[in-house]
Amino acid sequence: MDLKKTIADVPDFPTKGVLFRDITPLMQEPQAFHQACDAIIEFARSKNIDLVAGPESRGFIFGCPVAYELNVGFVPVRKPGKLPRETVSVTYDLEYGHNTLHMHKDSVKPGQRVLIIDDLLATGGTVDATRKLVEMMGGEVVGAAFLIELVDLKGRQLLSDMDVFTVMQY
Amino acid sequence: MDLKKTIADVPDFPTKGVLFRDITPLMQEPQAFHQACDAIIEFARSKNIDLVAGPESRGFIFGCPVAYELNVGFVPVRKPGKLPRETVSVTYDLEYGHNTLHMHKDSVKPGQRVLIIDDLLATGGTVDATRKLVEMMGGEVVGAAFLIELVDLKGRQLLSDMDVFTVMQY
Repeated sequence: MDLKKTIADVPDFPTKGVLFRDITPLMQEPQAFHQACDAIIEFARSKNIDLVAGPESRGFIFGCPVAYELNVGFVPVRKPGKLPRETVSVTYDLEYGHNTLHMHKDSVKPGQRVLIIDDLLATGGTVDATRKLVEMMGGEVVGAAFLIELVDLKGRQLLSDMDVFTVMQY
Repeated sequence: MDLKKTIADVPDFPTKGVLFRDITPLMQEPQAFHQACDAIIEFARSKNIDLVAGPESRGFIFGCPVAYELNVGFVPVRKPGKLPRETVSVTYDLEYGHNTLHMHKDSVKPGQRVLIIDDLLATGGTVDATRKLVEMMGGEVVGAAFLIELVDLKGRQLLSDMDVFTVMQY
């Protein structure tokens, strides 16, 4: 089915001038959710991965079914204060202000092949930070997969050395 | 395998005196994550469901693989300000203060059979609020499933009219 028909375009969210691509109608439609997961699973299978890493919280939505289906582990990438044990962290700049992401320090073993999965590729900042965290622990990021790519924001440039897969593009 | 061996007990998190059951080691261990998902999938299959509802963000971790595997939709239950379209909401009391949860107003159709999935059953407040949201839209909550149950907190009492399944109990 045409997955774009299950995306709701919401103007001026979260702030004026932004056209938000709302994926919740896709998720609640069984065939669409399954088809979107299957597309990412097919890409992930080709990369021979050991782990999926997913930034909170929408990275969990597609990352966890992929990890389940491929029989690999899932590692959450979280905002400050959420992970209870020792972490590694990276702070990166946003248009206004900055953001910090954490992963548990023991969440990736040296040499593990990691696929990063998130719902949306915009500027790529979140995934670039996640890659740094994985590499701090000795893991190898073998690719990144997203449901939606906002092409004008050129996230692929920041991730140019990475194999990037996106299910649909705007 | 014994899933409890993959849970990390972290004292004094998030506040002093609380023993936090950290599920991230379970998630990153492929066999454990798969086995935990399969236990919930088996329960979910017996309930003949149309939808999974999962509270953010750890409800996504087990809820999304279950929805994928059973070919049903997934509906996120979110904190204020996250969902871009019209919502229904419920506010409920916590030990200190209160909490508000939202679902998109069109996320459950009348008569749909909904299973609520979260990582942890403590007092049951989150799931009770989610049930109210589902019922406001005319859906029927046919059960709730959790990875972990903290038995002393008596969440089952609040959910006594609901079929509750938990993978492990402390």
